[in-house]
Amino acid sequence: MQFATITRILGLLIMVFSLTMIPPSIVALIYQDGGGSAFVLTFFLTIIFGFIIYFPKRRAKSELKVRDGFLVVVLFWTVLSLMGSVPFLLMNTIEMSLADSVFEAFSGLTTTGATVISGLDTLPHSILYYRQQLQWLGGMGIIVLAVAILPMLGIGGMQLYRAETPGPMKDNKLTPRIAGTAKALWYIYLGLTIACGVSYWLAGMTPFDALAHSFSTVAIGGFSPHDASIGYFDSASIELIASLFMLLSGVNFSLHFMVVRRLSLTPYFKDPEFRSYLVMLVSITLICLTVLLAYNRFDFSEGLVKSIFHTVSIATTTGFASSDFSAWPSFLPVLLILTSFAGACAASTGGGIKIIRIVLLFKQGFREIKRLVHPTGVFLIKLGKTSVSDRVVQAVWGFFATYVMLFLILMILLMANGIDQITAFSAVAACLNNLGPGLGEVAVNYSGLNDFTKYILSFAMLLGRLEIFTLLVLFTPYFWRR
Amino acid sequence: MQFATITRILGLLIMVFSLTMIPPSIVALIYQDGGGSAFVLTFFLTIIFGFIIYFPKRRAKSELKVRDGFLVVVLFWTVLSLMGSVPFLLMNTIEMSLADSVFEAFSGLTTTGATVISGLDTLPHSILYYRQQLQWLGGMGIIVLAVAILPMLGIGGMQLYRAETPGPMKDNKLTPRIAGTAKALWYIYLGLTIACGVSYWLAGMTPFDALAHSFSTVAIGGFSPHDASIGYFDSASIELIASLFMLLSGVNFSLHFMVVRRLSLTPYFKDPEFRSYLVMLVSITLICLTVLLAYNRFDFSEGLVKSIFHTVSIATTTGFASSDFSAWPSFLPVLLILTSFAGACAASTGGGIKIIRIVLLFKQGFREIKRLVHPTGVFLIKLGKTSVSDRVVQAVWGFFATYVMLFLILMILLMANGIDQITAFSAVAACLNNLGPGLGEVAVNYSGLNDFTKYILSFAMLLGRLEIFTLLVLFTPYFWRR
Ligand SMILES: [K+]
Ligand SMILES: [K+]
Repeated sequence: MQFATITRILGLLIMVFSLTMIPPSIVALIYQDGGGSAFVLTFFLTIIFGFIIYFPKRRAKSELKVRDGFLVVVLFWTVLSLMGSVPFLLMNTIEMSLADSVFEAFSGLTTTGATVISGLDTLPHSILYYRQQLQWLGGMGIIVLAVAILPMLGIGGMQLYRAETPGPMKDNKLTPRIAGTAKALWYIYLGLTIACGVSYWLAGMTPFDALAHSFSTVAIGGFSPHDASIGYFDSASIELIASLFMLLSGVNFSLHFMVVRRLSLTPYFKDPEFRSYLVMLVSITLICLTVLLAYNRFDFSEGLVKSIFHTVSIATTTGFASSDFSAWPSFLPVLLILTSFAGACAASTGGGIKIIRIVLLFKQGFREIKRLVHPTGVFLIKLGKTSVSDRVVQAVWGFFATYVMLFLILMILLMANGIDQITAFSAVAACLNNLGPGLGEVAVNYSGLNDFTKYILSFAMLLGRLEIFTLLVLFTPYFWRR
Repeated sequence: MQFATITRILGLLIMVFSLTMIPPSIVALIYQDGGGSAFVLTFFLTIIFGFIIYFPKRRAKSELKVRDGFLVVVLFWTVLSLMGSVPFLLMNTIEMSLADSVFEAFSGLTTTGATVISGLDTLPHSILYYRQQLQWLGGMGIIVLAVAILPMLGIGGMQLYRAETPGPMKDNKLTPRIAGTAKALWYIYLGLTIACGVSYWLAGMTPFDALAHSFSTVAIGGFSPHDASIGYFDSASIELIASLFMLLSGVNFSLHFMVVRRLSLTPYFKDPEFRSYLVMLVSITLICLTVLLAYNRFDFSEGLVKSIFHTVSIATTTGFASSDFSAWPSFLPVLLILTSFAGACAASTGGGIKIIRIVLLFKQGFREIKRLVHPTGVFLIKLGKTSVSDRVVQAVWGFFATYVMLFLILMILLMANGIDQITAFSAVAACLNNLGPGLGEVAVNYSGLNDFTKYILSFAMLLGRLEIFTLLVLFTPYFWRR
């Protein structure tokens, strides 16, 4: 393990991160909201801390191996989340404990969007802005992680997306170096953010709200400066704009890249994952609409908008709400939470298990049935026209089973802390899938939970965001053995 | 498909099944309880019905193919369960609807042990005896299914146990023909039943209760002639005897066979599945004991007995109870229900996913982690000293994922019928895992559910009992294609 180099990189990252305290300081200046000192102080603390870590190792520049990648990724999210919690601790508008601050910062940078704060509407603009920015930065990090790093590490079958792998993504050779890839994707990310923000503004949001929500929409984050989330605006057009941009942000960013480069929409519709994603969203929307109409909750047009908006919001794991879906009739709340397990497409800003893996699970399930009927037959699993290797299929199974096991263990841990079954089920699902809102006690916010539970849930968010295995390998002695 | 031969076999089976109406008729005679007419009538109905089916095809004796096996097994359980429901419909002591009767008969023959009857203690002995006998017969059927047929069909990795497969079970060549296998195993099954019944009797049960409970213990069924189940006897020695025989019945019957043949216990302790089974039972018992003591529910010795008894009862999917475990503190009820998903060993009378599959899931999970750290390494999955083929590993994954998906679909279906989340979760788990009792509304019995839900749950019991794929393949067009 290249500890010296890893330390140097970490120090650099912290110093760069300190710069992100500048925009909220400016917001504080503009609105004169008294929130500025927390950010200025954090800026100095972080840059000094980063420098102390960086300076002794400044000459360590050995080549990083794939194995070092796991450690770098985990340190990146953990340390920046901890640094990111400092402004919450320092601000003097509302009292936030250490557990609260850590939870909120992890929730921001992992783009989960669960909050422990109630009474958002009364907070200084600078703090509200800062929360949104955390999500936007987290979203940036995820794009690079998912497109450039996870395929290299081979997590849960994501070697499928290795640029050099012959496969459905063959002519999808992104600029080979991570830096190049990152730059290209960030332009798309930035473009989406601007388009989203302008649309919100034209639909009637204030410039501040438009900016704030564009950040958390494109990051599939779900934070909002309002307790009522998107419901605050009570506007069908805003809900439909949000749906569109959540849907786009839930798509594999490499596909966006190809679409932009070729100026053609065909890459979308040729992609098996994208097609399954649309089929899932349409099916769940229709189920929601049918049940909502059967129970007379809304008239048709309002029901349609609410169904589209909430399906897209929960399935992509954004977690925006425009009505209290946890009180929707019959099985809808549980169905929506379960949908968030499928999540969005791989290499998007969304969470959950990812559509591509669910598609592979189904294909393998059918293969097993075919094998039962024809035990000697040879059946290949295909994505589009390319067959998927057994190694990838096995990695996907391993991912799914481990995901389910971890979910159950975390749920039992929460119940051991006195949380009821429905709250525990939905809180763990909402955090592990980086969704945000849950059911029961955590339908609105997470402030009612005890500190220990908040730490467990922060851990769950990190687990989910890092596709569990990146974090899990660090807990095996096997990883640390030479 | 050899439809004519399958019809002939089915007719024969129904005629043989009609004979099982004789013992309850005799019980009715002995106790003069007025229940006899229902059984005598069913006897004549079934034997005539069987003959009508059998006679036209009596000369059809073509060789059955593996594919026919699926149909035979499903028809066997479905038709016999439907026939088995007739006495419940005909009896005049309590009113049972068609849905109730079907549910009770499926619950009996699949050894699930969920009941829609309350006030068992007031029913005629003949009917009580009949329910227990259904479970005992179901247990017999499962042993043959699991040891002789499933490995041949290759369901969910069970080709692992194919007698001719070189593997951990190599020197476990049971008499090659199904008939021979069945006979050998039935002697063990009968021996266990007798030993269990005599022990119960010596511990203070009446001969009727001892016989009745021995039937449902060895079948891992869980039916009892008393509403209070084993709790009726309020006896620690009876609870410990029950624990011992549930534990033994949850072991692979091929292992018992080897132990008997060699007069040595080493086959048990050499078997990786058996060792994991013990480790799981001991761990869950200790967790239960710790929590029960922490909440001051019992003193140490009573807590120990209750913990052992309920852990073994739920983990093996028997479903006996001696106290209301659904009201146990903290996460224990949910933990126990989750434990029933693991279930007992393969080729036992227990339900659930089976320990061997859980062991393989864990081993594959660790292999994925090793592969992440050393992407070019070759890692074999071993059971004991033999490596398991990738084909088996894939089949196990397919089984697990399909099991989880079906569980969720059934749970959503129940919630669509107005059942609350906790009841739906536990009712589906209890039926799919062939466990019996659940939580919430179904903690004691299933009488409060509507008819449609009872049919869904009967289907779930059959799904679980036939290791889901046996039933599932019949729903694919692929199966029926020539
Ligand atoms: K989110
Ligand atoms: K049972």
